Amino acid sequence: MIESGMLITIPARRGKAERIRSGQVIKIINTHGQQVVDTWAFNAREITEFMSMEHSRAAIEKIIPEVGDILVTNHRRPILQVVEDTTPGVHDTLIAACDRYRYELLGCKEHHDNCADNLAAALKELGEAAPETPSPLNLFMNIPVSGGRYVAFRPPVCGPGQYIALRAQMDIIIAFSACPQDIIPINGAACTPTEAHFTVA
Amino acid sequence: MIESGMLITIPARRGKAERIRSGQVIKIINTHGQQVVDTWAFNAREITEFMSMEHSRAAIEKIIPEVGDILVTNHRRPILQVVEDTTPGVHDTLIAACDRYRYELLGCKEHHDNCADNLAAALKELGEAAPETPSPLNLFMNIPVSGGRYVAFRPPVCGPGQYIALRAQMDIIIAFSACPQDIIPINGAACTPTEAHFTVA
Repeated sequence: MIESGMLITIPARRGKAERIRSGQVIKIINTHGQQVVDTWAFNAREITEFMSMEHSRAAIEKIIPEVGDILVTNHRRPILQVVEDTTPGVHDTLIAACDRYRYELLGCKEHHDNCADNLAAALKELGEAAPETPSPLNLFMNIPVSGGRYVAFRPPVCGPGQYIALRAQMDIIIAFSACPQDIIPINGAACTPTEAHFTVA
Repeated sequence: MIESGMLITIPARRGKAERIRSGQVIKIINTHGQQVVDTWAFNAREITEFMSMEHSRAAIEKIIPEVGDILVTNHRRPILQVVEDTTPGVHDTLIAACDRYRYELLGCKEHHDNCADNLAAALKELGEAAPETPSPLNLFMNIPVSGGRYVAFRPPVCGPGQYIALRAQMDIIIAFSACPQDIIPINGAACTPTEAHFTVA
């Protein structure tokens, strides 16, 4: 069990998962301001039910959730509500987690840390395995959509210490990955992935 | 084997799948002009690899593909290229396939035809089963994104007989569902789902 309010680290380039009870609030902090945090949530009782971006966009009629919005599962049931957001409100629901295929295409000849493997490793620490890699809620990720069609990859617009808070709508396993992307500037112009933090209360 | 150019029906409210060889062109025709056609593509040799909207948006840097764009799999490999589009170019990659949960939320007390079940049934006719319901390429579906954040559900803007053509980039199984949504006007103001057609050449 997590001590209420305790600061938990999502290590740089790594994942971290925790069991969360319905009603608890998870505050995800962009500690240094430029770090994207890929986020997944699974029904703690049935891991084949999980937060789904394609179902959530239909439910909230937005591509970026805001305070008050309730994200839903692939069974269209409420799983997380956005209850506070001290960032400028720029997050992403459109882009897949980075994975080994992404880094191979970017020219990596050897293993590169990636969010898909981080999810698997974080769940494994809890003795769990996901049936697939769901499309993540990419907190703090800046993917502007222009002209109703075009997307771009831009650095985050957060400041250090800004956070978003999500309230669990069922007992869940939440999983994060501090995105290890250091080839394109999605984690800031310095291309230097950092740790992030969260609390549960 | 499909006879080249033969008109194949996607029955109203139903699914249809076919095996397609690399290089073949599939032309999907909006026969009556107002019908959404949910579309999936799977690697014919390994069904756990399939066309992925979240990977394709990253690859093409668009939320709506256009002529020349190459859609990719969850392994980020080319699977379908848009080679012709006689419609106004309005399609959707954002919204989940309709499913029984969707119709339950819309108040249906009994079974309602849905695109997720149609995919499963169409694949079963070929002796195949998908490991999950991938987020579909919703051909002819009109989901405008405004203000970089908001989505709306609107009727198609196609005319009768307009089509889009996709060239297979590997041996695939393609699957379609003529969306049975008749409660909201996503298949036109008349809320009357119809059949659509395709050819393979």
